[in-house]
Amino acid sequence: MPTPPDATSGPSTGPTDGLPPFLRACRGLPGSATDRVPVWFMRQAGRSLPEYREIRGVGSILDAIAEPELSAEITLQPVRRYGVDAAILYSDIVVPAAAIGFGVDVAPGVGPVVERPFASAADLQRLRPLEPEIDTAHVLETVRILVRELTVPLIGFAGAPFTVASYLIEGRPSRTYTRTKALMHGDPQLWHALMERLADMAIASLRSQIDNGAAALQLFDSWAGALAPPDYETFVLPHSQRVFEGVADLGVPRIHFGVGTGELLGLMAAAGADVVGVDWRVPLDVARTRVPAGTPLQGNLDPALCFAPWEVTEAAVRDVLRRNAGNPGHIFNLGHGVMPETDPSVLERIVELVHREGRCDGTLSAEVAAS
Amino acid sequence: MPTPPDATSGPSTGPTDGLPPFLRACRGLPGSATDRVPVWFMRQAGRSLPEYREIRGVGSILDAIAEPELSAEITLQPVRRYGVDAAILYSDIVVPAAAIGFGVDVAPGVGPVVERPFASAADLQRLRPLEPEIDTAHVLETVRILVRELTVPLIGFAGAPFTVASYLIEGRPSRTYTRTKALMHGDPQLWHALMERLADMAIASLRSQIDNGAAALQLFDSWAGALAPPDYETFVLPHSQRVFEGVADLGVPRIHFGVGTGELLGLMAAAGADVVGVDWRVPLDVARTRVPAGTPLQGNLDPALCFAPWEVTEAAVRDVLRRNAGNPGHIFNLGHGVMPETDPSVLERIVELVHREGRCDGTLSAEVAAS
Repeated sequence: MPTPPDATSGPSTGPTDGLPPFLRACRGLPGSATDRVPVWFMRQAGRSLPEYREIRGVGSILDAIAEPELSAEITLQPVRRYGVDAAILYSDIVVPAAAIGFGVDVAPGVGPVVERPFASAADLQRLRPLEPEIDTAHVLETVRILVRELTVPLIGFAGAPFTVASYLIEGRPSRTYTRTKALMHGDPQLWHALMERLADMAIASLRSQIDNGAAALQLFDSWAGALAPPDYETFVLPHSQRVFEGVADLGVPRIHFGVGTGELLGLMAAAGADVVGVDWRVPLDVARTRVPAGTPLQGNLDPALCFAPWEVTEAAVRDVLRRNAGNPGHIFNLGHGVMPETDPSVLERIVELVHREGRCDGTLSAEVAAS
Repeated sequence: MPTPPDATSGPSTGPTDGLPPFLRACRGLPGSATDRVPVWFMRQAGRSLPEYREIRGVGSILDAIAEPELSAEITLQPVRRYGVDAAILYSDIVVPAAAIGFGVDVAPGVGPVVERPFASAADLQRLRPLEPEIDTAHVLETVRILVRELTVPLIGFAGAPFTVASYLIEGRPSRTYTRTKALMHGDPQLWHALMERLADMAIASLRSQIDNGAAALQLFDSWAGALAPPDYETFVLPHSQRVFEGVADLGVPRIHFGVGTGELLGLMAAAGADVVGVDWRVPLDVARTRVPAGTPLQGNLDPALCFAPWEVTEAAVRDVLRRNAGNPGHIFNLGHGVMPETDPSVLERIVELVHREGRCDGTLSAEVAAS
């Protein structure tokens, strides 16, 4: 095993001194062998936690998000219970579109549903610019509460233009994105106009979250993996690029994630992401060959492995750590969101395991090396 | 442009003389520049055809499949209308499991539903060996009718053990395959016992279709792309391998296809497929880097592109042809099944375009080269 670099010298000291592990990994800064690999879970806030179900009540998630104290508490719950290295705001990617009155709700057990889906140029009128301090004042209040109370960095987020567009056009979750692709190919001018508005919306939302104290951001292009790479490049990349550029001056790390994006990882990095999230289908060592050298990666345990016997889960966690050997920039996560039926104690054990056996200097602990 | 090889010499003559374009491409045999690139469409039989809806009636697809004359007619309809180079049997991958009485139906608008999903070792008893001549006599009668009537090769098919297992375990179509993966990881012994029975079932079904005259086969592992490669390798590959070995002596080309299998293409070839089907997410030139040199590929136009203006569809078809330049083994297809709302005239035009502009000697026609 290589000797770990001296923790008192090298890029981990100096201006980055004292950076929390999550933010250090986002910048690809090597720590010492004893620094922990940061970990958080997509969808860690809500869903599977009993303390969440206790306070959440019934009804649309949008109603819960509208209550800052409640949303802050839901955001804090997993940080307390799991000891994760970052908090992610309890919110939803359709919040800005709902806030400007596009007529979108999140139906329990279904997902985003739109009363009058986006279908023609006339619908552009229904997408006025987001004024975050007014339209999503409650979200920003939640952010401010969290920044006061949290001991770890807060991740703000937005839906990438493509994924939000797919909801607005399909009107409900889709498996095929037929209407979305039909609009994209059939009326490129309208498509780009829509994407521009949604990019502006994402920029405004992200900027407001960061202005109020979020320390990092994630742009969710959850369903971009439905596209062939040439279509992604023509119809999506320029707009995601503009979102990343539109927040570049704020200096916080920018994470980019979608499901089933194995063929898009290079393009998603090229969009301007500092960190590329990887779903569980692409082993991290393979993912590394598709992004520029040194790009920090986030991921990528199959969320379904939380339902396996612990020794299987443990081996899979070690496999994720091992496949990242030699690369300091790793944020451990699942390869997609926490599933609702997940036993929280499994997530607790995963955090503990990653903290104990991960090495953020790119070396392998004895347990991981032997796995 | 390279000079096309002399059509009267080389591997396209001799024992393969007179092979239909589809079967020649399945064997990776170069034809002459004027031979056509073969094309067929997954789900070409049924779904979008008005003449299909006219004769199909309502009710479960399993009832329609039980009528040989009707099923043969539905299989023939797209061959007549589109001029495709192969027919695929109108059937369903759950037919064998339904035929032995596992209690599975195909609910219109939903997909396969199972009354009592597979959950424990006791359920193995419900999976007795398939006796095709008895259990699926109607399917074989359909095959025999078709072999008499068809002018193009008939493709028989079966569901791969993983995909059939996922239906039996989940009880209905799933997005996450949580139960399937939980069984796989939680009780590997039971998992492998189940997969062995399903492999036997696929072998018996495929052998019977070929014995009755099918000229090629496709093993559908539609949902294998939900697995991380190491899990595929441990829990799926050996069983799919056994299926391919179990029909190897029959000498017909074996095609292997699943959706979202970009990371699995090499393993799916290694399972013993002669032809690897590729979904639209992986450009064919990229797919070629993941399978052994010379492996014939099938695919891969995004089915959603059938809803685009014709000039967009046309350009995308040419792009598929161009990305396969230099490789004779190409069977044009969509990257997944025909969507129900597809306009049949678009599929007609695609066939005509592929036949006119595709070159099965690996060269590019002027139109494709210029695209």
